[in-house]
Amino acid sequence: MPDLHGGIDLGGTKIQAAIVDAKGEVKGEARHPTPTEGGPPQIVEAMAAALTEAAKQAGVETAALGGVGVGSPGDANEKTGVVSSARNLPGWEGSFAVAETLEQALGTKVRVGNDVQVATEAEFHLGAGREFETLIGVFWGTGVGGGLVLAGKPWLGRGAAGEIGHMVVHRGDARCTCGRRGCMEAYAGRMAMEREAHHRHQHGHGTDLFKLMEKHGKPRLTSGIWERAIDHGDKLAAHLLDRAVEALGTGIASAVNLIDPEAIILGGGMGIRFGERFMEPLTHEMGKHLFADDRPPAVRVAALGDLGGAVGASLLVTNR
Amino acid sequence: MPDLHGGIDLGGTKIQAAIVDAKGEVKGEARHPTPTEGGPPQIVEAMAAALTEAAKQAGVETAALGGVGVGSPGDANEKTGVVSSARNLPGWEGSFAVAETLEQALGTKVRVGNDVQVATEAEFHLGAGREFETLIGVFWGTGVGGGLVLAGKPWLGRGAAGEIGHMVVHRGDARCTCGRRGCMEAYAGRMAMEREAHHRHQHGHGTDLFKLMEKHGKPRLTSGIWERAIDHGDKLAAHLLDRAVEALGTGIASAVNLIDPEAIILGGGMGIRFGERFMEPLTHEMGKHLFADDRPPAVRVAALGDLGGAVGASLLVTNR
Repeated sequence: MPDLHGGIDLGGTKIQAAIVDAKGEVKGEARHPTPTEGGPPQIVEAMAAALTEAAKQAGVETAALGGVGVGSPGDANEKTGVVSSARNLPGWEGSFAVAETLEQALGTKVRVGNDVQVATEAEFHLGAGREFETLIGVFWGTGVGGGLVLAGKPWLGRGAAGEIGHMVVHRGDARCTCGRRGCMEAYAGRMAMEREAHHRHQHGHGTDLFKLMEKHGKPRLTSGIWERAIDHGDKLAAHLLDRAVEALGTGIASAVNLIDPEAIILGGGMGIRFGERFMEPLTHEMGKHLFADDRPPAVRVAALGDLGGAVGASLLVTNR
Repeated sequence: MPDLHGGIDLGGTKIQAAIVDAKGEVKGEARHPTPTEGGPPQIVEAMAAALTEAAKQAGVETAALGGVGVGSPGDANEKTGVVSSARNLPGWEGSFAVAETLEQALGTKVRVGNDVQVATEAEFHLGAGREFETLIGVFWGTGVGGGLVLAGKPWLGRGAAGEIGHMVVHRGDARCTCGRRGCMEAYAGRMAMEREAHHRHQHGHGTDLFKLMEKHGKPRLTSGIWERAIDHGDKLAAHLLDRAVEALGTGIASAVNLIDPEAIILGGGMGIRFGERFMEPLTHEMGKHLFADDRPPAVRVAALGDLGGAVGASLLVTNR
């Protein structure tokens, strides 16, 4: 069934696999935890297992698929199929030939691409970006990733385009998780927000964030914990979310001033949870810095949810 | 002679016209001051006169040209040939049908485009950007303008792309000439630098900048005055230039993180005068904020000099 393709979204905690038909409909899916030991070989084995399970659900052999795409963090080289420096994956500081290894396991061709870029393309083809020709995907989660579709085509630059989270919004100010200063992600990334909450809590700011985290048995401040906290009137949580939205609006405006796209698609765990709730302050902050402020771009929340990454990855087989 | 084209660079103080052959060689040129009275009709009349003079020098009737391109400030609509809100031109707050009016005066077709975008395209085709497929032009002058060439093609977005000078580098900080806060141009634009120098001078900072300006009979702090001042060891001038270079490096890095181009072409009056002298601190400041810092883009000073704008404008006739 060459009109069925596989897609794998490789994340720091989970591997999401999907079997997708030519219309973008999901015919089978499976989710496995990302192995924390064994490094790249073990992780790729788990990817093969998840994809095989999803194929079984769709009633197809993996070797009969038209191909499989992988959306990966780190430096995913589309030409070689090698993934390097995927530092949020356990033991993946070096390089590993993902496409080659998976091809042997699955018996079909495999393409790799950047996880955020393929999720942006999924929204462009099948989700919240369908009506636009040029858009920027902003994936607000643990960090802040970005993807570009310009005049209907993915824009990769020299392979590392779309790093909107590391556009500078406040030169010399907050330290980012990447080690640099003043990046948008240093204010808006969930990991940076948690670090800042922890720091302020230790310095005497009252907050229920960490109590809520323990109460709900979470190892970190998930988007759900942030939401509960602001629903309970937690002032520090509300302040840090406002600060994140200011940075997002500022960085997005900079990107719009440079590229002048028709639309911004806001995805990611934080983006999907808070996108509608913070749409007004986000567009307000963006508007403050738009040079052509009489016609701001449309801002839409991503529509494909959790499966967007895997569906987008499946498009790598047909779109490249 | 349809292989000869005209180009006009419309500036706030001068109108530069050129006749260019198919290889990009300049066969005739003329420079007229921009009329300060009479508004758009008078300015367009002066454009026609300059172009006619350049054509005479090249030994060609304007009606025999393959067409004429105009690089304009403000909102230059490529589709309609109308230029709006060109606020640095005297009396040009509204809209004026530049292409239509000039076509009647010159007897050949006329195309209008953004001045900085066409200068970027000139560098791409004929100047410092010839060896690259994807580049960002950064024109550091009175303000800071930008132009984009992506995979060999001009990128205009919805018509307002390339506003790199209004990317935010320091949210909420210095007031920009555009009225917003924290834009790159608020630190690096020559006009903003002059305003800041004036402000600090009035508040007791010693500087010879304004003495040098008077001595050389200049109405403002030109790039030449800034150069003389730092050559004389003027501390305020040196500090404000360092501050400008920091902002440029930061904003350029943000643009690179988003687009991942092969090269940055640095032009404009300040860029051409100071590009080589400040290349090391500029690339150092940029490097601090590059996400893919192991392979920075090439940074080159524009090669076409003062005529780049007019030559680039002439390309509008053939490249659109």
